Amino acid sequence: MTIFDELESEVRSYCRSWPVVFDSALGSRLTDVDGNSYLDFFAGAGALNYGHNPPALKQPLIDYLRRDGVTHGLDTHTAAKAEFLRAFREIVLEPRGLDYKVQFPGPTGANAVESALKLARKITGREAVINFTNAFHGMTLGALSVTGNSMKRGGAGIPLVHATPMPYDNYFDGTVPDFLWFERVLNDQGSSLNDPAAVIVETVQGEGGINPARVEWLQGLAELCKRHGILLIVDDVQMGIGRTGPFFSFEIADIQPDIVCLSKSISGYGLPMALVLMKREHDRWDAGEHNGTFRGNNPAFVTATAALREYWTDDVLEKETLAKGERIEEHLDRLAATTPELTLTPKGRGLARGLAFSRPELAGKACAAAFERGLLMETAGPCDEVMKLMPPLTMTEDELDEGLAIVTDAVHCVAAGA
Amino acid sequence: MTIFDELESEVRSYCRSWPVVFDSALGSRLTDVDGNSYLDFFAGAGALNYGHNPPALKQPLIDYLRRDGVTHGLDTHTAAKAEFLRAFREIVLEPRGLDYKVQFPGPTGANAVESALKLARKITGREAVINFTNAFHGMTLGALSVTGNSMKRGGAGIPLVHATPMPYDNYFDGTVPDFLWFERVLNDQGSSLNDPAAVIVETVQGEGGINPARVEWLQGLAELCKRHGILLIVDDVQMGIGRTGPFFSFEIADIQPDIVCLSKSISGYGLPMALVLMKREHDRWDAGEHNGTFRGNNPAFVTATAALREYWTDDVLEKETLAKGERIEEHLDRLAATTPELTLTPKGRGLARGLAFSRPELAGKACAAAFERGLLMETAGPCDEVMKLMPPLTMTEDELDEGLAIVTDAVHCVAAGA
Amino acid sequence: MTIFDELESEVRSYCRSWPVVFDSALGSRLTDVDGNSYLDFFAGAGALNYGHNPPALKQPLIDYLRRDGVTHGLDTHTAAKAEFLRAFREIVLEPRGLDYKVQFPGPTGANAVESALKLARKITGREAVINFTNAFHGMTLGALSVTGNSMKRGGAGIPLVHATPMPYDNYFDGTVPDFLWFERVLNDQGSSLNDPAAVIVETVQGEGGINPARVEWLQGLAELCKRHGILLIVDDVQMGIGRTGPFFSFEIADIQPDIVCLSKSISGYGLPMALVLMKREHDRWDAGEHNGTFRGNNPAFVTATAALREYWTDDVLEKETLAKGERIEEHLDRLAATTPELTLTPKGRGLARGLAFSRPELAGKACAAAFERGLLMETAGPCDEVMKLMPPLTMTEDELDEGLAIVTDAVHCVAAGA
Amino acid sequence: MTIFDELESEVRSYCRSWPVVFDSALGSRLTDVDGNSYLDFFAGAGALNYGHNPPALKQPLIDYLRRDGVTHGLDTHTAAKAEFLRAFREIVLEPRGLDYKVQFPGPTGANAVESALKLARKITGREAVINFTNAFHGMTLGALSVTGNSMKRGGAGIPLVHATPMPYDNYFDGTVPDFLWFERVLNDQGSSLNDPAAVIVETVQGEGGINPARVEWLQGLAELCKRHGILLIVDDVQMGIGRTGPFFSFEIADIQPDIVCLSKSISGYGLPMALVLMKREHDRWDAGEHNGTFRGNNPAFVTATAALREYWTDDVLEKETLAKGERIEEHLDRLAATTPELTLTPKGRGLARGLAFSRPELAGKACAAAFERGLLMETAGPCDEVMKLMPPLTMTEDELDEGLAIVTDAVHCVAAGA
Repeated sequence: MTIFDELESEVRSYCRSWPVVFDSALGSRLTDVDGNSYLDFFAGAGALNYGHNPPALKQPLIDYLRRDGVTHGLDTHTAAKAEFLRAFREIVLEPRGLDYKVQFPGPTGANAVESALKLARKITGREAVINFTNAFHGMTLGALSVTGNSMKRGGAGIPLVHATPMPYDNYFDGTVPDFLWFERVLNDQGSSLNDPAAVIVETVQGEGGINPARVEWLQGLAELCKRHGILLIVDDVQMGIGRTGPFFSFEIADIQPDIVCLSKSISGYGLPMALVLMKREHDRWDAGEHNGTFRGNNPAFVTATAALREYWTDDVLEKETLAKGERIEEHLDRLAATTPELTLTPKGRGLARGLAFSRPELAGKACAAAFERGLLMETAGPCDEVMKLMPPLTMTEDELDEGLAIVTDAVHCVAAGA
Repeated sequence: MTIFDELESEVRSYCRSWPVVFDSALGSRLTDVDGNSYLDFFAGAGALNYGHNPPALKQPLIDYLRRDGVTHGLDTHTAAKAEFLRAFREIVLEPRGLDYKVQFPGPTGANAVESALKLARKITGREAVINFTNAFHGMTLGALSVTGNSMKRGGAGIPLVHATPMPYDNYFDGTVPDFLWFERVLNDQGSSLNDPAAVIVETVQGEGGINPARVEWLQGLAELCKRHGILLIVDDVQMGIGRTGPFFSFEIADIQPDIVCLSKSISGYGLPMALVLMKREHDRWDAGEHNGTFRGNNPAFVTATAALREYWTDDVLEKETLAKGERIEEHLDRLAATTPELTLTPKGRGLARGLAFSRPELAGKACAAAFERGLLMETAGPCDEVMKLMPPLTMTEDELDEGLAIVTDAVHCVAAGA
Repeated sequence: MTIFDELESEVRSYCRSWPVVFDSALGSRLTDVDGNSYLDFFAGAGALNYGHNPPALKQPLIDYLRRDGVTHGLDTHTAAKAEFLRAFREIVLEPRGLDYKVQFPGPTGANAVESALKLARKITGREAVINFTNAFHGMTLGALSVTGNSMKRGGAGIPLVHATPMPYDNYFDGTVPDFLWFERVLNDQGSSLNDPAAVIVETVQGEGGINPARVEWLQGLAELCKRHGILLIVDDVQMGIGRTGPFFSFEIADIQPDIVCLSKSISGYGLPMALVLMKREHDRWDAGEHNGTFRGNNPAFVTATAALREYWTDDVLEKETLAKGERIEEHLDRLAATTPELTLTPKGRGLARGLAFSRPELAGKACAAAFERGLLMETAGPCDEVMKLMPPLTMTEDELDEGLAIVTDAVHCVAAGA
Repeated sequence: MTIFDELESEVRSYCRSWPVVFDSALGSRLTDVDGNSYLDFFAGAGALNYGHNPPALKQPLIDYLRRDGVTHGLDTHTAAKAEFLRAFREIVLEPRGLDYKVQFPGPTGANAVESALKLARKITGREAVINFTNAFHGMTLGALSVTGNSMKRGGAGIPLVHATPMPYDNYFDGTVPDFLWFERVLNDQGSSLNDPAAVIVETVQGEGGINPARVEWLQGLAELCKRHGILLIVDDVQMGIGRTGPFFSFEIADIQPDIVCLSKSISGYGLPMALVLMKREHDRWDAGEHNGTFRGNNPAFVTATAALREYWTDDVLEKETLAKGERIEEHLDRLAATTPELTLTPKGRGLARGLAFSRPELAGKACAAAFERGLLMETAGPCDEVMKLMPPLTMTEDELDEGLAIVTDAVHCVAAGA
């Protein structure tokens, strides 16, 4: 019996799929305590877009620690935060013409979502919010109330109310006009829909099964929100910071959300950090109205700043991400075409990719087969029916090909057994 | 206009009291970008019980980073987590005869509280919970619903329901028997109190104004919970990890809570980390029922392990904490006695100390005067009427005396102006 | 200034459309204190299906009062209740093969709806319910939470939660398959729809604008509920007791709802009375779990019994209702055809009829014009865009023609002014 | 098997205590179908303050029905309503200097409570309300949320939130100052009490066990509400209309509640009717914001008017009520004094009287023994520990003595068996 079995709660989950003890990691590979190496198509569920322990960030981090830079700063002013804010303004906001204020809401994506919902309710004076089918926004009560998964919702132990689900893009496979139901109930004074403060949306649903919303759908949503005085919150926790190519996933739709949630890869080093961006006129917070002990995780500010300087001062990473994404797409298309008996559906955008199985249980089997071959992958989707391919954006082409070959092997293996 | 004024949200608060830019920190002192030094009676709101960047933790942290130990691990097994769990079992649980399972609920205290409430509701099948007047448990919706402060509650933007407040110890200055109201409504089938799943309590209220509950009150609460089949959750986020002397603040009452929340100083280095401890029989979680990206902040596990080994293998720190606490108590008693015109009330336990002003606005003024003299302090209490003294447990006696002298100066200064 | 203006709350509404003081009423006519007579196309909002003070009910009522029969009986056994139950079993339930238990939930439709929702939640252990767009179920909090109208919902003063709206039949004018959205979110474990205890539905929406659901839609709904273990509640408060032809409005669909709410015309004399019918296996109430002072309004039981015996022992009333309904339909079709400039849409079933105006404000004007001509009508629909024709079922053909002529006049008058 | 056993829901309750079939009733006596007579110490749970079928009301009612007066009027103006309003103004409001507007909220006490809560929330813009331990306000969701009984609350099937209980008068047997807890949490910005829109209170709790609040407590409550901008709602549904002596039960405290709920005996004949009274400045309703089919139960208006004219144009009834109340009090005091082994506690005000048993189960047995002797009584209180004496106010002294003799017999019988 390991220390984990003995002492750690039954709530643990990833370790059940990958029953090894990881020790070190670099770039796109992890090594376990027995020296075995694993290629990473998982990237910390999107928190490691630049791979593990990227040297360009590691050195500034160690330097900062070595010189006793402030570690824990709450929301005091620190030199490290100032540097991050300047870099964020210069590298991220200004080139994109975005006039956002920045909030440090606590170090997790759920903190960002909770803050965003509070702020939207304060601004509008309304309680209700709209979320989408198969959304994932986090596990704290506010974030969970806009999350789709029924098992996770059940964990709340109280009825989750105040949010009403609307169909995400393509929920009816294109057979129903976009926003037909949503706009109808908004316009109908008898629909019984409580007036919503905000819509919260992921541009590509990750946990929901790697579902990319079309550009025109996102634009339609932004227009609908504007028409009805509803705030648009983009939860870019998983799909932001380059996962789909551009820094913000919504850039391709040329929209400016009222509020944006960022976390996961924002620190670039897997360190807890999150941001809420809000249009300047929406910064209606009172001082201290939302707080939290770990808002000022300064080592994360240091790596976040280094990451912006390393990866976002030109468009190299974005282009490579798109190119690698296409490489995966082509590979998955071929795979689907050559295993028609499995009716596989490739989907995704940038380096957020999925392979949906018509027989859901096979996706998990394929991930297990991949793990046996040294590749880390997890499933996604409401029935865990999607193999999720989320490699570090910085993965080399050779590693990518190596991983894709394993995916093919794993799928074939499953096909043989199916 | 600084970058903070320009770009950071109005929600920021500590920086308004201390309008400098901190750069580095060591032990009990911070240094700003202009080279000014500040003595710390604040300790990261309890997250820095061992002071800033303690060398005994710093070296293992830098070593771990340098050797590319896994940084971000979600809830996979890692060598760093195994080592932490072993140390926690050996140094914390076993010597105290505690048979707790350990959950990593996400890296903040609010994550721990949200998990604890979910678990209590799942175990009991009830929705209602009991909190106490002037409680503080966090800013996410579940944690906020059991928090007392009306301004912070108002930030929710929806009615916070499911929790009913009960009077904390000494709420009526000893004029009413303990638990008179609480037990009466529990026993009365017509009281309209919804059956509670759990009681959540701090043994010493920090944000609520440094209010220590008496040992017999805590014991009475534990017995009352047992009698009525209510789970007892101790939120030891701020008062645990030695703040009041022993590792767990509830040890002095010789009680074993059903669920314990830990965070803040658990990593020892100001890095985001939190734990939920639950009695073995209460580990009713399903795999993945609660999750979160930053549960596996492995650098924090490394420093947490080093901190346990450094500070908790003997009782030196505990004894010193108690001794320093008495030193503060004596000082504050003298101060109160010599400034009768202010009607000051010292209070607290261990190194969680407060000085309550009968004229609330003076507490803030005294903190400001202390800051002018190079000492960091914040206020607490529903009217911000308490100067809060929470130095690192590792502060030297000289530093402590230096700080106390400033407190005296600051109070005198306020007394003169009052 | 009248006593009403002086003393009655601003909440009053019908009296604003008909600013006269009614004094007496018989059959399909009311008379005001000045002796003016009004033809009734309103029928007490469906509470007077047999017209005003029907002689066949009046005599038993007066006899009962004269002989000092028990008036107020709570839920004691009374001779009058026994007689009603026997008649209800013999005349209503047995011939239709319905094995329902009968609850007297309090004297209003809202009491019936509140009871039905409680019972469904108790049986299933779930909190959520499904209602339909433009539903109307009552004004108490439980009933209001499943009601569509935003003004009335706003009156609650608290967020109305626990109910999720689904599109009623024809909500998209037939362009979307029935239950596409509803069944999709039920089947999708990631939809974020809380599992519903029950669906509550009107077979024809009255307040919602006289919207009849098609037989196949009602059947589809019943099947969907069965498939998903959801209880089907038919709110037959307004459309039951013969309003659409048969005693229960759902008979045409050959379905057996799990729970049925009846009120309005059940007493037959405009006296407050309501019933909840539940399948025998669903009678999971504990004694006294729902109560209320006026559950045993025995004079209403007397008239209810007399009404069953007078009108429901053969199929004459049902056939006449259908015939009169067709007469109205033909008339309205002609009217719409001859006033194409108004784009009128006739709709309805049995003697629940409506005439929808494409320019909503004209419906109210037409009702006002009808009132000037001595005909009582009200509007319905989310924009008050429908003239509602709900005459007593017992109205003579001559009266019906008289009323329809006035409707035509009123519409022409509005057309001329439009 | 009777028709009731076969067909009526298990929810029925009074009939279980009194397993006979009542047929007729007059004054203070009911007669069952076998000709047995029962003296009534129950009075329709307070709905029959003038006894059964009082002749002075019966004749106007029959006359009204015979002349085909409007029966069902919704909220149209009717002659019967005008007459009622005039009588209510002249006989009730003006002599007491009360400037209330009158709302007809639907025919039950729960309708009145639901309306009162809606209105209070609208006026204040707050959601929370305060209720008292052992309160009873009704069974619809809004009314149930302010009701104390846990079995009835459980019937809701959803968590009942938005209301916080406070201790009713004497909840701690006089050992704690009035409003100590209530005022403390209102004044404490950290108490976690949501700001209340209103307090709802019964001046004497009926279902809660015949608990009269002292005059000074009621005055203290009114002052506390005023001080904190909280609306005071008196639910006078059971204790109004003379039950405790004066027309309004709160008259003895010389207070003017912001909102008053009336129902039960307002019609005087056991017919469903209810009123909400609100201070003129509080009539903030929009037209139609709260409605309901049976608001205009005109036969009830007729008997209500007759009752006001018969019983309230002088102070005879009030004085007799007080005298009879004292007669009961003396009798119960003697009974308690002569059966010390039962530790009986008489309590009450006017003709709302109770006899509390220290061994709760004996109260039910005594009521059963009373029923065997031809007297109708029910229990009250959270443990059904109180025999409730609520005779018609119009009961003769001989009948009262007859009933009290039976009570004595029944108690002795129970004492013998105990």
